[in-house]
Amino acid sequence: MSLPPLSARSHRIQPFHVMALLARARELEARGGDIVHMEIGEPDFPTAGPVRLAGEQALAHGHTGYLPAAGLPALREAIAGHYRSRYGLDVDAGRILITPGASGALVVALAMLADPGRNVLLPDPGYPCNRNFVELVDAVPRAVRVDAGTDYQLTPGLAAEACDDATAAMVIGSPGNPTGTLASAADLQGLAALGRRRHIGLIVDEIYHGLHYGEDPAQAVAHAPDAVVVNSFSKYFGMTGWRLGWMVVPSEWVPVAEKLMQNLFISASTPAQHAALACFSDRALEIFESRREAFRQRRDFLLPALRSLGFHIPGDPAGAFYLYADVSSLCDDSFTLAEDLLERAGVAVTPGLDFERTAPERHLRFAYTTDTDRLAEAVERIRAFFAAGS
Amino acid sequence: MSLPPLSARSHRIQPFHVMALLARARELEARGGDIVHMEIGEPDFPTAGPVRLAGEQALAHGHTGYLPAAGLPALREAIAGHYRSRYGLDVDAGRILITPGASGALVVALAMLADPGRNVLLPDPGYPCNRNFVELVDAVPRAVRVDAGTDYQLTPGLAAEACDDATAAMVIGSPGNPTGTLASAADLQGLAALGRRRHIGLIVDEIYHGLHYGEDPAQAVAHAPDAVVVNSFSKYFGMTGWRLGWMVVPSEWVPVAEKLMQNLFISASTPAQHAALACFSDRALEIFESRREAFRQRRDFLLPALRSLGFHIPGDPAGAFYLYADVSSLCDDSFTLAEDLLERAGVAVTPGLDFERTAPERHLRFAYTTDTDRLAEAVERIRAFFAAGS
Ligand SMILES: Cc1ncc(COP(=O)(O)O)c(C=O)c1O
Ligand SMILES: Cc1ncc(COP(=O)(O)O)c(C=O)c1O
Repeated sequence: MSLPPLSARSHRIQPFHVMALLARARELEARGGDIVHMEIGEPDFPTAGPVRLAGEQALAHGHTGYLPAAGLPALREAIAGHYRSRYGLDVDAGRILITPGASGALVVALAMLADPGRNVLLPDPGYPCNRNFVELVDAVPRAVRVDAGTDYQLTPGLAAEACDDATAAMVIGSPGNPTGTLASAADLQGLAALGRRRHIGLIVDEIYHGLHYGEDPAQAVAHAPDAVVVNSFSKYFGMTGWRLGWMVVPSEWVPVAEKLMQNLFISASTPAQHAALACFSDRALEIFESRREAFRQRRDFLLPALRSLGFHIPGDPAGAFYLYADVSSLCDDSFTLAEDLLERAGVAVTPGLDFERTAPERHLRFAYTTDTDRLAEAVERIRAFFAAGS
Repeated sequence: MSLPPLSARSHRIQPFHVMALLARARELEARGGDIVHMEIGEPDFPTAGPVRLAGEQALAHGHTGYLPAAGLPALREAIAGHYRSRYGLDVDAGRILITPGASGALVVALAMLADPGRNVLLPDPGYPCNRNFVELVDAVPRAVRVDAGTDYQLTPGLAAEACDDATAAMVIGSPGNPTGTLASAADLQGLAALGRRRHIGLIVDEIYHGLHYGEDPAQAVAHAPDAVVVNSFSKYFGMTGWRLGWMVVPSEWVPVAEKLMQNLFISASTPAQHAALACFSDRALEIFESRREAFRQRRDFLLPALRSLGFHIPGDPAGAFYLYADVSSLCDDSFTLAEDLLERAGVAVTPGLDFERTAPERHLRFAYTTDTDRLAEAVERIRAFFAAGS
């Protein structure tokens, strides 16, 4: 065999380490093992009834063809309406573009901003795909260490220190994955000002918006009007498998984003777009709010329980469905701990290796995407595992 | 306003010219005008009933979460089964990866093969997104003139002449868009041999497979086993708006494609994957075959009718639903002709400008994605337009 050579980026892009754990978890389950899944980054609820029903109706009505690249006009309006009614914010529907998930939006945003060889600031720890979206367009991911001192958020000060003339963009997430922490209004304003001053694009991933358990988080559309804001129907709206998201871009950039989307995607899923219209009905929003309440209760149970086991979780993770724990007082290597927890305690979690470059061996991510009974079971299993002397 | 600079590729990627015509067509229709649409690259049939029903059932059963990046195992098996039962070909299901449309597959294929600065051979005329997929990864699209002499297909001879040490890949389409012509078995074998000799990747876009009106076309999986084969549920299977396709890659490359897909897409649409399982039932295949027969009848009507009007359509376009006409004996500029046909005859077609660099002003693409009565109406309108003295 002599296959042609693969691109350099094919070698630079890493698979997720959690995949090996997932495969092993499935193997254990296939043999009758019982695993508590705390490694999974999606809500454990299926898409809400009214949204599924709207999807079924769209199919029955034959809404199965391509749509305009920018998305169904009614859906763009509905999202603008949501910014208005939920957050009191005015966002022109013309600036809202429908994408295949936040994933698609992040590809477009980075393709729009980052030339090969330029660098992109990414908070470390952060969402692991971001560095690979940067690799896709041959820009250079630049990990910027963030820690509990800034709520794991990239601050204007950290960004100013890390950027240089080759910096094309910075990508932040609020609420963030894996830490569940929020960017403050001051952070967003400061990053926007830095971006303007240094001609650096700001991409704010708000995919976990809606899933927050304190005050409403600061919104990028309000505090960083030039930012590319990425969002999705995956998490709060519970539509992961439908592959639907959106982005808000400065109006000057709408035609640019649109031509990229025309080429890369043709359009986002048509049944999904019709179904998503139902996300903004009172009935659906009620369901989403009750699910949010369930996540809050889980967090309120899990956070002190893990702390009592010796997991160090700084600050107050106020959003998403993740807790990011420092395990350095419990073990030398979080990857081995994750393996042991899976093999010996039947608890699946994600090692820091997937999220950070700085101290991966010190961290584990717990997702509370399973119900409180199962979380309690996991806590008991972990307690017993430590008691048995790991 | 001082937005940060856009990437160079943002400037290089062009929007489709047909978009302006489409917008104008909609304007005319909004004012009560009647337009025959021959510019649209998707079947005019909604997704077949059994497939829509399977989608509805998937939603009712709550199949709404993420799937493994490589796709639903049963769907990968079903596609392998289709290669076997329809074409007598053995393709390992493990080499079949489910993507968000052929579009997603083409992004993955080029990201896997083309480093910045390397070039990719693209037949000219060809599918316009291809050069922009190449631009996305900052490789250099290299247009290779193809004409009626080779059935508008890139031949091993043309490719050997056009490639150099910086050539990373070649992308061909069979049946092709905009020409509807097929690559022969000898072409595929020759291109595969050239690729092996010169270490150049071969990407074969078979999205219009199934929509052919003569003998079965040569299959890349049979004649070019190292090729990346791109396919889709969009055209023959009538699922454009669902955003679902697949790729077949050499087994060594499965893990590479899979990690790219994990990052770029997470997974392809879940309801779509469940629905697509129904594409391989006898009932659904019967519908697809009767639609294929309708396309054949349209082609058999339209081809001689356009020729009798003075459109020069060489060869025998044996697939897809396009006819690509040389209009140089009818006008100086096909773009103006397309505008005039829209404004004065109420017929929308796509100018060559979207498909080629060499002689765009000499070509028009006609899509027979509307029924024979409407095609006949279009032919009459064009006849009258020419008779009135254009
Ligand atoms: C921070 C973050 N951004 C983006 C995504 C992509 O999600 P999707 O493409 O489903 O919208 C995810 C998924 O887990 C995520 O955690
Ligand atoms: C030749 C060709 N390739 C790929 C595509 C992309 O189609 P999809 O992403 O819907 O599978 C198209 C769509 O028209 C096409 O004509």
